[in-house]
Amino acid sequence: MINTFGKKGICWICMFFPLFCFSQQKIEQWGRFETSFNYHYNGDAFTDVDITATFINGDSSITVDGFYDGNNVFRVRFMPSKIGTWTYTTHSNIRALNAKRGSFDCVKASGDNHGMVRVSNTYYFKYADGKQFYPVGTTAYAWNHMSKGMQQMTLKSLKASGFDKLRMCVFPKNYDLVKEEPEIFPFNVLNVDSATETGQHKKWDFSTFNPLFFQTLEKQIDALNSLGIQADLILFHPYDHGRWGFDALPMTVNIRYLKYIIARLGSFRNVWWSMANEWDLVKAKTHSDWIKLSKYVYDNDPYHHLCSIHGTTGTYFEYWLPYFSHASIQDEAPVMNWGAASILRDAYHKPVIYDEVGYEGNLKNRWGRYSGEEMTYLMWMGAIGGTYVTHGEAYKYYNGNDTIFWAKGGMFRGTSWKRAAFLRKILEADPAPLEPADISHDFKTAAAGDGDYIIYFGKEMPENWVFNIPAKNGSYPKPVAGDKYKIDIIDTWAMTITPVKDVFEIGKEVDYRFYGKNRKKIWLPLKPYLALRVTKIN
Amino acid sequence: MINTFGKKGICWICMFFPLFCFSQQKIEQWGRFETSFNYHYNGDAFTDVDITATFINGDSSITVDGFYDGNNVFRVRFMPSKIGTWTYTTHSNIRALNAKRGSFDCVKASGDNHGMVRVSNTYYFKYADGKQFYPVGTTAYAWNHMSKGMQQMTLKSLKASGFDKLRMCVFPKNYDLVKEEPEIFPFNVLNVDSATETGQHKKWDFSTFNPLFFQTLEKQIDALNSLGIQADLILFHPYDHGRWGFDALPMTVNIRYLKYIIARLGSFRNVWWSMANEWDLVKAKTHSDWIKLSKYVYDNDPYHHLCSIHGTTGTYFEYWLPYFSHASIQDEAPVMNWGAASILRDAYHKPVIYDEVGYEGNLKNRWGRYSGEEMTYLMWMGAIGGTYVTHGEAYKYYNGNDTIFWAKGGMFRGTSWKRAAFLRKILEADPAPLEPADISHDFKTAAAGDGDYIIYFGKEMPENWVFNIPAKNGSYPKPVAGDKYKIDIIDTWAMTITPVKDVFEIGKEVDYRFYGKNRKKIWLPLKPYLALRVTKIN
Repeated sequence: MINTFGKKGICWICMFFPLFCFSQQKIEQWGRFETSFNYHYNGDAFTDVDITATFINGDSSITVDGFYDGNNVFRVRFMPSKIGTWTYTTHSNIRALNAKRGSFDCVKASGDNHGMVRVSNTYYFKYADGKQFYPVGTTAYAWNHMSKGMQQMTLKSLKASGFDKLRMCVFPKNYDLVKEEPEIFPFNVLNVDSATETGQHKKWDFSTFNPLFFQTLEKQIDALNSLGIQADLILFHPYDHGRWGFDALPMTVNIRYLKYIIARLGSFRNVWWSMANEWDLVKAKTHSDWIKLSKYVYDNDPYHHLCSIHGTTGTYFEYWLPYFSHASIQDEAPVMNWGAASILRDAYHKPVIYDEVGYEGNLKNRWGRYSGEEMTYLMWMGAIGGTYVTHGEAYKYYNGNDTIFWAKGGMFRGTSWKRAAFLRKILEADPAPLEPADISHDFKTAAAGDGDYIIYFGKEMPENWVFNIPAKNGSYPKPVAGDKYKIDIIDTWAMTITPVKDVFEIGKEVDYRFYGKNRKKIWLPLKPYLALRVTKIN
Repeated sequence: MINTFGKKGICWICMFFPLFCFSQQKIEQWGRFETSFNYHYNGDAFTDVDITATFINGDSSITVDGFYDGNNVFRVRFMPSKIGTWTYTTHSNIRALNAKRGSFDCVKASGDNHGMVRVSNTYYFKYADGKQFYPVGTTAYAWNHMSKGMQQMTLKSLKASGFDKLRMCVFPKNYDLVKEEPEIFPFNVLNVDSATETGQHKKWDFSTFNPLFFQTLEKQIDALNSLGIQADLILFHPYDHGRWGFDALPMTVNIRYLKYIIARLGSFRNVWWSMANEWDLVKAKTHSDWIKLSKYVYDNDPYHHLCSIHGTTGTYFEYWLPYFSHASIQDEAPVMNWGAASILRDAYHKPVIYDEVGYEGNLKNRWGRYSGEEMTYLMWMGAIGGTYVTHGEAYKYYNGNDTIFWAKGGMFRGTSWKRAAFLRKILEADPAPLEPADISHDFKTAAAGDGDYIIYFGKEMPENWVFNIPAKNGSYPKPVAGDKYKIDIIDTWAMTITPVKDVFEIGKEVDYRFYGKNRKKIWLPLKPYLALRVTKIN
C-alpha cells in the first residue's frame, strides 16, 4: 500500500487532487471558512493591499474581499451555503497574495446551525434551512465596549433570556447614561491631546484599523451566535458628540470602514446590518450619504445579510429601497393602540420590526419609563399585527446598583424580559407566523396557520368570551361550519397557558364571523393582558 | 383716423401684430383657452390624425395634445398659469391642421379662481394662488351616468354641502347598488347583441371615442368647478363584470383613452387623476400595467394634475413612485384608533387622503353601515393626524326612496355630510393645516399654526380639561412660559363653537408639557366628539 502522507502528515493526493481526497477541511453550511497568508508589506497594508478571493462550487461563484488583520497576516473568510466542494483563487495587487488556491468541503449544517436569517413570504423571517425565525430582540448598544467582566455578565444574562436578536453598536457610545471610555477602538490612536476642553482628546489614524478591536468584536458576535442570537450590528450612530469623531468620519473613511467590516464579518451568519441608529441625528451625514452608504453595503455584501436603517421617533427612511430587507422603525404610535401595527406592512410589503417603541425603566425620559406590563403589552401589540417589537430596559437606581441593560448590558432588572421569552415560546409553538386574520376589521385576531389563531385582548378585561373567529382568515382558507376548535388561555403576564376542556364547534357564517354553536363561551380571569390560542381539531 | 376693423369686425392689427392689440382674447390664469379647426378627414380622425400645439410665453413653453371632437372639429385646449401673452403653433401630420398660429393674453385670476390644487409643504395642499386647500371630499362614483334630473339633484346637493372634492368614475358602474344603463358611453356602439346570457350586450368600436360622452363629462366637471369642487376622476375601475368590458380594454386602447382624456381634460383646473378605484380587483390589468398607465399619465400630463391610485382595504400601492402626488388609501385601520393616521405621512412623505374608510349608511356590507357619528369621528381622526378622510353615504331604504349618494348621487340622507362642512370650516379658520404637535406621544393635539392648536377628544368624555399643551409643537417653536391662550369649545357633532371667557397663562415646562398656571381648567359638557381650539393671544 502506498503511503500518501509525507513527513508533516500532509496528504499529497489532497495537495494535487483535492476533489478526491476525504481528509480535506470540512466546513458546515453557513459555517466560516478562513484562510490566511503571511506577508510583510512595506507600507500601509490596510489601504494599499487589495485581496479578494473567488469561491466556486459548480455553477456558484462568489467573490469576497479579504482583509489585513495586522502582524503581517492577510485573511480571507467565506461562508458557504451550497453543499459540496468549494475551490478558491485569490486575486491581489501583491504578487505573493495573488493566485493562491485551495478548497474545502461544505457539509450539511448540524446542531443549532440553521444558517443565515432571510426574509420569507414578504413579511416574515426564516433561517436558511427553512426554520422560522421570530425576532424577539433586545438592546444593549454599548455592551461590547464595557469591561470584560461586564461583557461576561451580559452574555450570561442573554443566555438566561429568550432573546434571539441584539441591537449593538460597532462604535462606542458617548451619551448621558454611557460615558465609559472603551479600552480598544476600531482606529489606532495617533496621539492624545489632553488640553482640550472635553478632557482627553485622541487623534486618530483613519487610514488604518485596529485589528484587535475587530477581533474582539468577532468574538463577541460569535459568543452571541453560540447563544442563538442575531447581532443587529449598528454601523453608525450619532452618540459621539465630538468625543471621538466616529460619527463624522470623511466619506472615504466611512466606505473603507464598511469594506473592512464586510470583509471581516460577512461570513458571520448571525450578523444583520443596521446602517444607523437615529440616522437623522447624525449631523455630519446627509440623507444622500445614507443612501450611498446603504447602497454600498447592498452592492458589496455578497451574502446580502439582513439590512435596515433606524431613525428617531416617527422618522422613517425609504424602506422600499432594495438596500433594505426590512423596516427597522422607531415609533410607539403603531403599537400603542389597536390596528396600527399592520399599517406599515401594507405600506412597505416587507417585514416590520419596531426596534424602538420606548423601554421598560425608570428614567425621567419618556422613552425609558414604561412599566414591565407596558413593555410586554407593546411587544404583544406588535406581534398580533404581524410585526415585531424590540425590547429594551433602562433602569437607573439611585444606589448606582444598575447597569442599564439598554446601554451597557449587564443584568436584567425588570420584568418584561421574561415575558419576551414567553412571547417567543408562543410564537414558535404556532404553525406559522402571526398575520392579521381580517385586516383592518379585527385587530385582536391573528391567523397563526391554517385553523390556528392567537387572539389578544390587550388591556381589556373581558369577563367571558363567546367563541368567535373572523370569516376572513389572512392567507388561509375560510373556516367551515362544523369545524371544531380547542382553546388555551394564555396569560401573557403570568406566563401561563391554561387549556380549556371544552371543544367548540362553529355554526354558519354570521355577519363576517363564525360563532361557536349556541354561542358557547368561556369564562376568563378578570385580568388584563390575556390571549387565547385557538386551534382546529383535525 | 384709420379704421383697423374690416367687414367682419376683425382687427387687422390684431392679425399681424397680436402682441400690441388690446382686443385680443383674455384668459384668466388657470382658465381654459380653446381653439378649434374644421377639417374633414377621410378616415378615422381619432386614430390617424395627430395634432399638438406648443404654447409659448417668455421662457415658458408647453406642448399639449389636441383632439378630435367629432363633426370635423379638431380642438386644442390649454390652461395657462403665467400671466402675459401666450402664442401658439400647431403641429400635425395633416397639413391643414399644421402650423396654425394664434395668441391670447393670460390675465390675473379673479373671483373664486384660485388655480389648480398642488401639493404644498410635503403633506398638504394649496391652490396655485397660495390659498390653502383642505380636501373634504365625498363620493358619488356614477352620478355622471345617471339621468339628467338626477345629475341636477346631485349638483344641488353638493352646492348645499361643504364638500370640495368628489370621487367619480369616467366609466359607468355595474354593481349591486348601481345597475342603471347609461344613455351615453365613451365608446361608440358597433352593434347590439341581445342574445347573450347577460341580456343586452353591446359590441364596441374601440378605435373611436364618443365625443358627446366626453362633452357631457366636461360639463359635469365644469359644473363641479363652479361649485368649488375638485373632480377626483377615477380613470379605471373593476365594476364592469363583463357588461361593457371597459375594465378589460386592450392596453393600446387604455393608452389611447388616457391620451384622449388628458387632451380634453388637462386644461380643467379642478381635475385630479385617480388611476383606479380598487385597482387590485381589476383582473384584466397586472400590477405592471398599473405602473405603465400611471407613468403614462405622469409623462403626458403637461400640468401634472394631482394623481394617485386606490386599492381595496389595506392594499396600498407604491405611493413613493413619482407618478403619485399623494396617497389615496382605502383603509379604516389608520383612523379608527388614536395615533395611526399619521403613520402613513411618516412612511410616504406625501399628503395622505383616506379616500375610503367605510361609509355612513345602512347597508348589510360592513363598509356601508356606519352611523353619522362614526363617519364624522373618522373624518376628525384623520384630520387630527394631519391627514384627510373622504366622506361617503350609502343609505338604502326599503321603500326605495333613496339614491345611495355614494353610488348615484342624488340627495344626502344622512347626518355626517353636514359635519364634514363644519370640519372644513374649522380647518379653513385655522392659520395652517393641522399637523401632529408631538408626534407619537400626543395623539389628540394638532398644531394648527404658531400658537394655534386643535385638540380632539374623540369618543372620550372628559368632564373637565386642565389647560395643557405639548412642549413639542410640530414645525413651530416651543411655547414659552407666560404665553396666554384663549379657548373655543368645539362640538363637532352639534356643530357649535363656544368661546371660553377665561384666559390661560402657561407656566414652565413640566415633563414635556406646558400647563395653565394653578392647573386652571375648563368644564366640558358630558358629550363625546368634542374638540378644543386653543389660540395664543398676542
